[in-house]
Amino acid sequence: PLDHAYSLTTGTTSAELLRKLNEQRDIIALMEVKMKEMKATIRQLRVTEAKLQEEVRERDRLLSAGAAVKKM
Amino acid sequence: PLDHAYSLTTGTTSAELLRKLNEQRDIIALMEVKMKEMKATIRQLRVTEAKLQEEVRERDRLLSAGAAVKKM
Repeated sequence: PLDHAYSLTTGTTSAELLRKLNEQRDIIALMEVKMKEMKATIRQLRVTEAKLQEEVRERDRLLSAGAAVKKM
Repeated sequence: PLDHAYSLTTGTTSAELLRKLNEQRDIIALMEVKMKEMKATIRQLRVTEAKLQEEVRERDRLLSAGAAVKKM
């Protein structure tokens, strides 16, 4: 009876551990997908930032040129 | 001997499962930290994007005003 109880408990525990292992594995897989998406978003936002900074510089050049013309 | 072997195998498996469970838990914890950092980065990049877009708009207004003055 003791052996049986131990065996049963051990079996239940192993099954429970396996279930949790699989749950965690699924969570990790989902998080990896999410992180890939976030990395792509960050990459895209950095490209957009560089583009906008260039647009600001281009307009500043035009404004400087305009100011120089007015002074002439 | 069979009982012993089964018990030993079960014990080893449970210990192995527990070890893997803890490894996975650590991985999940690290990924959560990483995801929080990435979320903060995305939030900051969106703020920067909005600011730069406003800067572009402001310079476009100035350029339009300058163009209007020249036409007068």
